[in-house]
Amino acid sequence: MNSNAVPEPALLALDWGISSLRAFLMDRRGKVMVQRANDHGIQNLPEQGVRGFELAFAELCGEWMGRWPGLPVVAGGMVGSAQGWKEAPYVVCPADTQVLATCTVSVDSGLGVPILIAPGVMYDPADAAPDVMRGEEIQISGALAERPEWSAQACMALPGTHSKWVRIEDGRIERFATYMTGELFAVLSRHSILARLISEPGPINSGEANAAFVKGIEAAKESRPGDLPHQLFATRSLGLTHRLPNSVLKNYLSGLLIGHELVSGLSRMGGSLASGTPLVLIGEAALIQHYVRGLGALGVKPAAWLENTAPQGLFRFAVAAGLVTPSELAAG
Amino acid sequence: MNSNAVPEPALLALDWGISSLRAFLMDRRGKVMVQRANDHGIQNLPEQGVRGFELAFAELCGEWMGRWPGLPVVAGGMVGSAQGWKEAPYVVCPADTQVLATCTVSVDSGLGVPILIAPGVMYDPADAAPDVMRGEEIQISGALAERPEWSAQACMALPGTHSKWVRIEDGRIERFATYMTGELFAVLSRHSILARLISEPGPINSGEANAAFVKGIEAAKESRPGDLPHQLFATRSLGLTHRLPNSVLKNYLSGLLIGHELVSGLSRMGGSLASGTPLVLIGEAALIQHYVRGLGALGVKPAAWLENTAPQGLFRFAVAAGLVTPSELAAG
Repeated sequence: MNSNAVPEPALLALDWGISSLRAFLMDRRGKVMVQRANDHGIQNLPEQGVRGFELAFAELCGEWMGRWPGLPVVAGGMVGSAQGWKEAPYVVCPADTQVLATCTVSVDSGLGVPILIAPGVMYDPADAAPDVMRGEEIQISGALAERPEWSAQACMALPGTHSKWVRIEDGRIERFATYMTGELFAVLSRHSILARLISEPGPINSGEANAAFVKGIEAAKESRPGDLPHQLFATRSLGLTHRLPNSVLKNYLSGLLIGHELVSGLSRMGGSLASGTPLVLIGEAALIQHYVRGLGALGVKPAAWLENTAPQGLFRFAVAAGLVTPSELAAG
Repeated sequence: MNSNAVPEPALLALDWGISSLRAFLMDRRGKVMVQRANDHGIQNLPEQGVRGFELAFAELCGEWMGRWPGLPVVAGGMVGSAQGWKEAPYVVCPADTQVLATCTVSVDSGLGVPILIAPGVMYDPADAAPDVMRGEEIQISGALAERPEWSAQACMALPGTHSKWVRIEDGRIERFATYMTGELFAVLSRHSILARLISEPGPINSGEANAAFVKGIEAAKESRPGDLPHQLFATRSLGLTHRLPNSVLKNYLSGLLIGHELVSGLSRMGGSLASGTPLVLIGEAALIQHYVRGLGALGVKPAAWLENTAPQGLFRFAVAAGLVTPSELAAG
């Protein structure tokens, strides 16, 4: 190799979800050297069955694996679900990265190396229904790697189709709750009586749209148990009675649903600066900005926002599994 | 006319909703002599526009109108909405049948007589979004005609796609709240991630299905503000973890949604025997039985159940509007 060659990678980390496969080539310090992605999530494979996973992996990473045969490969996310490549059963809370690393499953990648798949996490309280996550535990591991001071105690919120609110204690996922917020917004916007009313494209970030969003947050703040099926109908009646223009009804609906998630998530997971438990948001900027505005309307300020901590989480998982020996020195 | 002839009707009453048109030929005592129905609800007319309404009316009632020209005709329901034959603007709470009768609109039926259309009712509190009903106010009028002792004070629940919980004081609709319960169940069952899990036909009225329904009710009972988007996800996790068989997950979902409606509706409208406010259920038997079971799990016993009070409500509306002079004597 000449001096311009790519330095030697230490890990190939796969974040393999429902709708996409993302691959990160990482060095021994846990730094992403290069990343690639395709849309071969587990529900969109080039073929059915195991062969589909092999093909998707080979398409994205075959060149790398040819160049660095024997490179360790780890994967997290829905690839380890019952609908994935191979099921990695849930580990039960409290769980940390070390626990994840001792409950893995392994598949033959088809390219001469195994792929170590991380398990999901289950929270199984005595007095309520169980809850599950798969993929978010990796993001959380990455967030704690980035900011070890949150290990003592933190509340982490990962907004999305199925948002997760997570309580961290002593470096472990102590408990968590899933909210179907993004999915509720999608199905109500498309398939309910509200669809016709809110089909108009709303103004982006206009003052009126923001006011409607905050109005939804405030309705959630005032809500009592059981009120959501009633408050959802207000999206319609506010439109019918011209109290809100139809163009911002989707902002109201969004505020109402996010507001319910915030009220319940904060109550259950207890994130607030006052309590000494930092609230950390993890997710994409476009969605996170709504959550920050919603939290603001509730008088809560998050301690930090992190965009994508999956690569760091997968690296930490690989280290815990003994596949990589980390180094503070530059590799190569 | 010989002695076997149909006695003279005093009113033709139309219950004209989204999906059906029902017509009741009534005598002077408010008794239904004969009824007919077709599927020409306002979203399924034989033609667009006013002509569609005329055709639907003529198809169902043309023969009657030919036989008894000049018979008074009244209509209630979505026919008076902005998407109806002619909009009858909402009257504001508190509202009784007399108020409804003074805020009507009239259309030319196309068969020589006008049709008097009842308005809907709006509840417009200072501290929350407005709410609207259209059609249920007629059912309520009918229920109060049937049981005048409820006029002093009652809580009426009309389960459905958009359930209504209504507080009656001094014979008037004092306030009410709509719950999108039936619609939430429909869109989540068909279009969400839960759809695949709950698509199996569940056992009907088996002990297991009933237990799952009650488990949903109990989750609602234990819920805190904002919890519904979280609890909905439990439908999935209870299935994934085999805590409930997939065949009864729809019963759990039904119990959860109806439970949230019951908890909020009872809290807002205050129906209980203990408080001296009777809780009255109005609706079809198949749906009402779920509500009775759900109320039972919450320790609440409804005072009564009425099946369809629209004809009596329309009769009372027609009397209040001066179109019919009621008689305690048999007509004819």
